[in-house]
Amino acid sequence: MTTQSAQRQLTAVPFAQVTLDDPFWAPRQEINRRVSIPHMYQMLVDTGRLSAFDLNFTRKVPSPIVLIFGDSDPAKWLEAASYSLVTHPDPALAALVDAVADKIISAQQPDGYLNTHFTAIQPEMRWKNLRDWHEMYCAGHLMEAAVAHFEATGERKLLASLARYADHIGREFGPAPGQRRGYGGHPEIELALVRLFHATGEARYLELSKYLVEERGQSNPHYYDLEAVARGEDPLAYWAKTYEYCQAHAPLREHTKVVGHAVRAMYLMAGVADLAHEYNDPSLLAVCEQLWENLVHQRMYLTGGIGPSRHNEGFTTDYDLPDETAYAETCASIALVLWNHRLLQFAGNSQYADIVEQTLYNGFVSGVALAGDSFFYVNPLASDGTHHRTPWFECPCCPPNVGRILASLGNYLYSTSADGLWVHFYAQNSARMEVAGQSVQVRLASNYPWDGSIQLTLELDAPQEFAVHLRIPGWCDSWTVKVNGAAAQTVAAGSGYVALRRTWHSGDVVALELDMPVQAVYANPNVRQMQGRVALQRGPIVYCLEGADNPIVNLDRVLLDPAQLAAFVVDQQPLLLGGVAVLRGPGQLVTEEGWDSHTLYRRNRPSSTQPVELVAVPYATWDNREPGEMRVWFRTA
Amino acid sequence: MTTQSAQRQLTAVPFAQVTLDDPFWAPRQEINRRVSIPHMYQMLVDTGRLSAFDLNFTRKVPSPIVLIFGDSDPAKWLEAASYSLVTHPDPALAALVDAVADKIISAQQPDGYLNTHFTAIQPEMRWKNLRDWHEMYCAGHLMEAAVAHFEATGERKLLASLARYADHIGREFGPAPGQRRGYGGHPEIELALVRLFHATGEARYLELSKYLVEERGQSNPHYYDLEAVARGEDPLAYWAKTYEYCQAHAPLREHTKVVGHAVRAMYLMAGVADLAHEYNDPSLLAVCEQLWENLVHQRMYLTGGIGPSRHNEGFTTDYDLPDETAYAETCASIALVLWNHRLLQFAGNSQYADIVEQTLYNGFVSGVALAGDSFFYVNPLASDGTHHRTPWFECPCCPPNVGRILASLGNYLYSTSADGLWVHFYAQNSARMEVAGQSVQVRLASNYPWDGSIQLTLELDAPQEFAVHLRIPGWCDSWTVKVNGAAAQTVAAGSGYVALRRTWHSGDVVALELDMPVQAVYANPNVRQMQGRVALQRGPIVYCLEGADNPIVNLDRVLLDPAQLAAFVVDQQPLLLGGVAVLRGPGQLVTEEGWDSHTLYRRNRPSSTQPVELVAVPYATWDNREPGEMRVWFRTA
Repeated sequence: MTTQSAQRQLTAVPFAQVTLDDPFWAPRQEINRRVSIPHMYQMLVDTGRLSAFDLNFTRKVPSPIVLIFGDSDPAKWLEAASYSLVTHPDPALAALVDAVADKIISAQQPDGYLNTHFTAIQPEMRWKNLRDWHEMYCAGHLMEAAVAHFEATGERKLLASLARYADHIGREFGPAPGQRRGYGGHPEIELALVRLFHATGEARYLELSKYLVEERGQSNPHYYDLEAVARGEDPLAYWAKTYEYCQAHAPLREHTKVVGHAVRAMYLMAGVADLAHEYNDPSLLAVCEQLWENLVHQRMYLTGGIGPSRHNEGFTTDYDLPDETAYAETCASIALVLWNHRLLQFAGNSQYADIVEQTLYNGFVSGVALAGDSFFYVNPLASDGTHHRTPWFECPCCPPNVGRILASLGNYLYSTSADGLWVHFYAQNSARMEVAGQSVQVRLASNYPWDGSIQLTLELDAPQEFAVHLRIPGWCDSWTVKVNGAAAQTVAAGSGYVALRRTWHSGDVVALELDMPVQAVYANPNVRQMQGRVALQRGPIVYCLEGADNPIVNLDRVLLDPAQLAAFVVDQQPLLLGGVAVLRGPGQLVTEEGWDSHTLYRRNRPSSTQPVELVAVPYATWDNREPGEMRVWFRTA
Repeated sequence: MTTQSAQRQLTAVPFAQVTLDDPFWAPRQEINRRVSIPHMYQMLVDTGRLSAFDLNFTRKVPSPIVLIFGDSDPAKWLEAASYSLVTHPDPALAALVDAVADKIISAQQPDGYLNTHFTAIQPEMRWKNLRDWHEMYCAGHLMEAAVAHFEATGERKLLASLARYADHIGREFGPAPGQRRGYGGHPEIELALVRLFHATGEARYLELSKYLVEERGQSNPHYYDLEAVARGEDPLAYWAKTYEYCQAHAPLREHTKVVGHAVRAMYLMAGVADLAHEYNDPSLLAVCEQLWENLVHQRMYLTGGIGPSRHNEGFTTDYDLPDETAYAETCASIALVLWNHRLLQFAGNSQYADIVEQTLYNGFVSGVALAGDSFFYVNPLASDGTHHRTPWFECPCCPPNVGRILASLGNYLYSTSADGLWVHFYAQNSARMEVAGQSVQVRLASNYPWDGSIQLTLELDAPQEFAVHLRIPGWCDSWTVKVNGAAAQTVAAGSGYVALRRTWHSGDVVALELDMPVQAVYANPNVRQMQGRVALQRGPIVYCLEGADNPIVNLDRVLLDPAQLAAFVVDQQPLLLGGVAVLRGPGQLVTEEGWDSHTLYRRNRPSSTQPVELVAVPYATWDNREPGEMRVWFRTA
């Protein structure tokens, strides 16, 4: 990608125009609708997150941060529920959504302020700790909810309410005399304001977003130091030690690595990508590119998990990717998808779609149980059998975040551009989009991700010349493409897409065959924790061994011989884990020969091994059966 | 060992009668005397630990636990300094010791109570939280200091003071009507009271120790529950969740595993071993044996480190022995030595001496820098280069504990029994002991642990028949023994010692040759973290690779081929690390061939390797040069 222009050449086709009916996502979307959204609503009720908007609750002061930012959870639920209404009208859910919207609006103060904690509990502390107290973060999620609600229902009341709140914030904060030069410690509002701008057409929200990004990390003196002193605190007592934790250690354009809290970093960069486009600012896109390189090439798990450390819920050092202690918060993978989806639209470089796909199929969707009523906050790549999903969390940011992404998953499949349409990944679906001035119906038939045979049928009112761009996934080394049964002339795009440019007729069929062998994945020698290890992947799916399929005393006893990986077979199991392709193949197993319970160490005699048949299942589906060990990376024999 | 009798057949020869002049310990004892003891004294002064006995300090309440139990640190220093005076008279140090003794005594209350925090700061909370507040722990260390002071100086004032304190405790706590049935959450006083009994001859201290052990973990209701309720606290709010943390989850004889805080567990068991002997109680010895089996065969690092978890400073589950995150507190290794040294005296079973030796030469002495002025609290078996010794700690329990063990190291070399003398390990020394009614001078000449040639010369006033028991270390597979140059008739003891029974004449020379090849050590398949790994040991010395000798990007790139280990050579380096034998030999190194900074993962092509020459140094000496990585366990090629 060049950085000469920073405007998006692609426009994502919104999920309202894409109906998934594939074996992987469609059942998850249904469970999300039928189970997760009602479950989460009940949890929000039970934990007082919704009634908080009545403003008549009590709370100990100082309050736990997770209670202070409780408004964000109903906001994300409202966003998820609104998306669900778009694709599946449901009068009962619509009524609930309307009631929640009213409840939120009812908490708004005459000056536009809208935050339950700092209205009901600590009104005197309003805007006194932008660094830690998440007011702007909550505002951002409420704005996203308002936009989603408006787009789903056509009803403007919540949008108008949040616009008033945005106006309040725009009065309080900014570069003008009399304004405070603050910005939120947990980014989110930056991208939300861009959405609010598009929903309302009011450019001042875009300007406010730009201000918040530009002001971030400016120092001399640092805003967070000033507000700490004003609270009577020592800025040096900040628990995270440096403002890298909230990406406020330096002005944005001076950032060279992804640092700090992973969710904050990704939400910020998603907003930055938006602003790069809106202002056609190559310097913002350049920061995205630099941080993306660092993230993807030095700091990302194979699953699309990011942020290895529990301590800061975020990044540590380059190549530090421990598996069993990986934090890899579900929300961080979600925010990674949001950012990469935005970057993809600039020039259609499939390196970004690769990250979206790898993350969605692995480290994102691992965040929710197949049953839809329990969730991972933390997504390690190995477990001793003690890590399990739970119905809710003290900090329940992840469940409704999963809900809103699943409900809007169609967002990620297609884009259009001046010269045609783009297919980013190949889950079976039907879609409708405007291409070259006319509406095109696309039917994509596949069994993706379980095999790589894809049929794309186009329906048009009249023949039309345009390009169909097909992504060749990063994991795919060999592929063929035919149009109406004949080998097709393609233009290989350096960006990872092939383009079929021709005059399309209704009923034309594009057949794409992506070879999908079992692949052995190895990690860079700088990843200390993964030396001498191998992982299994097929298509976009990262596999793991689980105790449930492999009754082995401990999975660290398993060795995989790279030379034997060709013997692995793919076995489609329609009844297992909602229908998955498992991998079966040979491994080696450390035996207990010569060991006993009185021998912890022995000299000069390594353990022996014996052959073992292994069964690997998709990582995303682990911990959906009896509790047990799990492991993604295996020692090589 | 049978459990029919629980009385010790062996008596350890006290360090006052053993003078080490070996290349390993003698320099460390000198540094301990010249550097560590003065350094620690200064630290105790600087941190107010000594002036606390003036009782005129202030402290925030609630106070950090580490300040509450601050009396134990000067106590351990006084013990170390007293031992040092025994072997190296030093008027200046003697004066300091006397002043510290007076200062301690000056803080004693009219009723005998002696604790600075609960006299100066919270007198109303005296004995109100035995579970957490360490009053008995501090009392125990003060008693040990008093015994050491008395034995070193012949001066009874501190001993008398602590006897009064013990009497106070004996009045407050016990099974009689009007007494409270409490016992300390951090064991230590149990073994200290046995020492106090021997120093004073007063059996009531032995009885008090027995009471404290017998009462421990009795429930219905649990004493710690009762005292929590009395403080207005909910017993269920106990941070450690269960009283396993302080070994008070069940009556002692019902314990089946070593659990909880490792130092507490080991101090307790050392006291239990003492009581087994004093009361000839096989049921107490049986608990020792059961817990020892669990510890040594399921829960001990190769270095003699114990307690893998930082969370509870202690034990987790069987076979859970991570290397980089190992806690393995220096104090825990010390307490492990104390316990095993006591168990060794029962029947002369060398399995206990094996643990003493392995721990002293590795995970204990790693706790102090060669320069003597910085310390490890935590002793991991791998480091990314960020773990370093520091001059002191907020909780400075380890430094003076190292000091007292180094100053009394001669305790661990010899025992006597009815039928002769026992040599436990072979550091060069001169010693004097009573054997079969006469004084025997022993000269042990060796270069141990760097080689296995040992010469033992006996000097006696008159020929005498007795047995010389020589320990064949657990690491030794092949050995020879000669007396006066001729192959000797030995009795192989099932307990790991060989006995030379004969009439000894002055000048008789025993020559023991212990084969000391480089050995590859492998871990039980149940140790998840160590599968496919190998460690290097020679004699009692566990080796490691350090970045200082091996300029490799990261040590996780190193592989050792078990078949190549025979090629390792021993290279004595008199100028390196105070004089050590290093191991040099061939390994394999993962190369960066085909990798670059833009490739975090790659498919179907494992990393290549190339030969590399490796230099391994003793684990105990790591982190004495420039900061860098360290690793004990290597992947096998």
